[in-house]
This record gives sequence, structure tokens and C-alpha cells, in this order.
Amino acid sequence: MTTAWEEFYAKTPKPSNLDENEKLLNQFIAFHAKENTKVVLVTSGGTTVPLEHNTVRFVDNFSAGSRGSISAENFLQRHYAVIFMYRVKSLEPFSRHFVGSRLLDMLELTTTNDTPSVSVTPQYVNKISDILKKYKDSLNQNMLLSISFTTLSEYLWLLRSACQALTVLENRAMLYLAAAVSDFYIPSNEMATHKIPSDEPPSVHLKLVPKVLEPLVKLWVPKAFVISFKLETDESILISKARGALRKYSHSLVIANMLQNRREQVVIVSKDNQETLSLTSKQLQNGEEIEKYIVDYLVEKHKDWLDTKL
Amino acid sequence: MTTAWEEFYAKTPKPSNLDENEKLLNQFIAFHAKENTKVVLVTSGGTTVPLEHNTVRFVDNFSAGSRGSISAENFLQRHYAVIFMYRVKSLEPFSRHFVGSRLLDMLELTTTNDTPSVSVTPQYVNKISDILKKYKDSLNQNMLLSISFTTLSEYLWLLRSACQALTVLENRAMLYLAAAVSDFYIPSNEMATHKIPSDEPPSVHLKLVPKVLEPLVKLWVPKAFVISFKLETDESILISKARGALRKYSHSLVIANMLQNRREQVVIVSKDNQETLSLTSKQLQNGEEIEKYIVDYLVEKHKDWLDTKL
Repeated sequence: MTTAWEEFYAKTPKPSNLDENEKLLNQFIAFHAKENTKVVLVTSGGTTVPLEHNTVRFVDNFSAGSRGSISAENFLQRHYAVIFMYRVKSLEPFSRHFVGSRLLDMLELTTTNDTPSVSVTPQYVNKISDILKKYKDSLNQNMLLSISFTTLSEYLWLLRSACQALTVLENRAMLYLAAAVSDFYIPSNEMATHKIPSDEPPSVHLKLVPKVLEPLVKLWVPKAFVISFKLETDESILISKARGALRKYSHSLVIANMLQNRREQVVIVSKDNQETLSLTSKQLQNGEEIEKYIVDYLVEKHKDWLDTKL
Repeated sequence: MTTAWEEFYAKTPKPSNLDENEKLLNQFIAFHAKENTKVVLVTSGGTTVPLEHNTVRFVDNFSAGSRGSISAENFLQRHYAVIFMYRVKSLEPFSRHFVGSRLLDMLELTTTNDTPSVSVTPQYVNKISDILKKYKDSLNQNMLLSISFTTLSEYLWLLRSACQALTVLENRAMLYLAAAVSDFYIPSNEMATHKIPSDEPPSVHLKLVPKVLEPLVKLWVPKAFVISFKLETDESILISKARGALRKYSHSLVIANMLQNRREQVVIVSKDNQETLSLTSKQLQNGEEIEKYIVDYLVEKHKDWLDTKL
């Protein structure tokens, strides 16, 4: 019998840049396989579900990419090589500190003997130089590979390719699946070709997206340390949903969080345990980010788990 | 009888920051009323239509905000004061040149006697200093006011407030409505409170958004020079749709464009004329932007039209 996810890949066209991304993934992973580095795949940002082939409208999932981009910086800090698989135009590690006009506002223009020069105003030099150094180091040391997607189907194709490339690392690979992936989609053959006319309100009929966490854990990267996320708005169902996912997919951990306070608190749920991480209001005021504590926790858990495999 | 747009405003809660934005609008417009500057309201980016009150999912309209942000720079160049009303995280004038890591990649870190400094690498100095100067000038001379929205209802409330503030400028006000506004929405009272469960595919029933161009032209800014946009993916209906809008709303001009080649060609449609503006492939290669030609055209048309009012 064909499963729902096999049918999805059979019916959904492959993105045109997939071969190129696979080449980048294989090079990056081969380099780190030799170096014996641990590698984490961080997925980040929401996926879109187009309503038309010539897409004007789409259903999107709420995600700016904060969780993923902040976590990627923290994994680099802990000497993991990072594959940052992100939604186009969502936040990226390092540049996330300077969205919109924030970096322009920190620059000043001076002219000496008709020669213009542009530099960072003294008050921001320390902050920027610190971020800039980490950014350049991660690129120079080949510790960060960024690959991007927009639609749900691009995401699903790219995720499978990334997993296939990661297999060689066995249990040194971590998957940190923070992207907000749509649960629903419109199959390619049921989609309108042109922009839906704007004078008649449409009813949009959506299909369930196959849960690729199942083949991912069972078939694609059976030896990897896999963390998924569960976001809810109703607290009463959060932990039971997280436990349900662990039972169903048998992966390592679920990070459960509420939309309303996801920057301050998460619950890390395992098969027989749950641990709450939270920031105090003082820590929040000081600009601390909960992702540092999440990543610290996961790095330790990954280490303990690797020790049990020896 | 209550019209559809009156009903929309009656039933849709006012955004919490609207009063503050109205204050900014009134100050900016009072300043330029005294200075006798022409003022253009540029709307830019897409609107979201939430599917849930605690929003995880929403329908979005394709728009990065390129048309609006590039046009805003060109209006500033032509000495218009610009109210830039944009979707949060869409492109903004000036900073649009440096999305993602592009500005970080242009910076270099040097340390002299343990004191770090950060400056723009010489090869980019000319480009950045030019943009930076225009950006700082527009702020220092109070020529640019940026206000933002995310959802469809925030957009509609903000647009009405901006129009009410612009009334005093009479025909010196131009409206350049480049935002990609959703045609459909889910009324507040029909929306799910919490995240729609992800195990049952929903059917989403959408309602038509009231066409506010009608009260805008007739009631809110009856003396202003109003330009709307028409985006299609099917060329055979493009011009007839543009003419239909002009007949229905009796505003000044429609800029008709195809999704597929909107960066290279637009047709500016008036009641009894149509003019195609396009870039040659050479101009495109040289990095020219069609918005310069659109804005030049509109500035002349606005001037001619003002002359007829004398």
C-alpha cells in the first residue's frame, strides 16, 4: 500500500533548485563527517500553501523565525555545525539583530577631503563588532550552511534531502524542527490556475498534509537525535498533544510552547519526563533569550544520549 | 441603508495603536500643509486575513513591498513628502537595499590598540553613502513618515484615518494604493478562537471585503489624485478589469500589471487613454527600476491635473 507521504512526493513536483541544494548539503556534511563535528539541522519560519498556481494568495503559518534563528546562533556557540533551513525572508542568525532600518540607523557618514567613508557610530561598535565577528567566524570556519524554502512542498522536499544527506553522521546528527509547517494544503491538481476572481467569495477546501515525522524517524534518519515542536493556544491540551506526538513517532523530545508566552516559557517533554524552562521577568528585561537555555539543555541531553550508545 | 463598508467598520474592532498613528499623521500633514509640499500616501505590502483569533494561520497576499518601497524613494527624489503605510516586515525605502545579511557582508571589523571599530568595506562605500545620505536627509527634513499594519482590518482602519488626515491638503494629496489588499476575509464572529485542530482538514468560508475605494473617492478624499493598482495573472482580462474599476470608482488612474512581468512593464490606464511603460532588457541589466518611470509619469500627470484646477 502507498502511504500518504509517498503519495505526496509522487504527486508533487520537485523544486527546481533541489539538486543544487543537495550538492551543498552533501559537501557541508562530508566536511563535518571528517572533522567529527556534531551537526544540527535547524528548520525555521512558516511554510506557505498557495491557493493558485500563478500565486497571488496563499495560506501562511505564523512564524517570524525568531526561535530558529536565535537557536542557530546558540548551537554555533556550542560548536555544533548548523544547517539553517529557513523560510525566505524570515529571520536569519546574526542579521536578525538588524531588521528594517536598524543597521542604517547605526551608520554615520563622514567625508574627509571629498572621500566619503561610512562607519558604525561609537555607541554601537561593541554590539555590532561582537555579532559581526561571530558571523564571519561561522562562515570562515564553514560552520553554517543556510538553505531556504517558501512553500510547503519546497519544505517537504528539502527536508527529505537534508535527512538523506545527514544519515552518514548517524547519532551525531540532531534535528531541531522549529519551522511552523502547515497542516493543510491544496493538492496541485485541485488548485486554480489563475488568480481567483475577486468578486466571488471562494470556499477553500484543504487536505491534510502527510506527517513526515513518521518516515523521518523510522526511515530517513533512524539514528539521529530528533526534536519536534508543538505550538498551541489552548494550554489545557498542550502537554497531552506533545505526549501524543512522542507516542506516535517515537522520536527523542518534544518542545511544547504556547503562542502567548513562547518567548518566556517552554516545556521539554520526553517519554517519561517533562521539564519546564522559563525566564524570569528580570532576565527578559536584560534581553536574555530562552533559546540559550533550550540549546544548553539539548546539547547536554544529546551528549548523555550519545554516551548510552557507546 | 447601511453600506457594506459602514457595516465592516461597525463590526470590526479598532486597532489599539490607531490613535497614536492618527496623531503622527496629523502632525506630519500639518507640517507639510504649512510648507505647501505635495504629499503622497504610498500603501505597500500584503494584508493578512487571520483564520483564528489566537492567530496561528492566516491567508496572505503575495507582496514583498518592492513596488511601494521603490516608489516611495522616487517620490522623495521628486520632493513629495511621503506617508509610507506598509505591512510589518515588508520592504521599506532605503533599508530595502540591505535585506538579510547583505549589510553585514559589507562591514569589516578592525582593531587598533584593542579598540574595535566597524566600517563599510571600501568597495561598497559609494553605494551605501549615497543611500544613507538620502535616508538621513528624508528623516531630518521630515519628508518621510512610516506607519505599519499587518492584518486586513488594521489596513482598512489605518487607510481611513490617513485619508481623513489628508483631506486638508485637498488636491495636493496623491494616493498611490500599491498594497495588495485581500479581497476576502472571515468576519470576527465567524472565526475560531483557538488554533484549528490539525487532524481535520477545514473548509474555510470567506466573505467579500467591502471595496473602500468607493467611499475613499466619494467621501474621504474627494479632491485628491487617486491611483489604484490592478494585478492579474491572465493578460486577456487585465485592461478590461482596470477600465471597469475606473468606471466604478471614478478615480484618477489605474496601474495595471501582470504578476509575471510586473518589474518590467505596467500599463497606466485613464478614463480615455492607456500608456504602456516598460524597461528594455538593457535597462533591467543595469539595475534600473520601472518605479522611477511610473513616479515620473505620475508627478507630471498630477501637475497637469493641478493646473486644470487653478
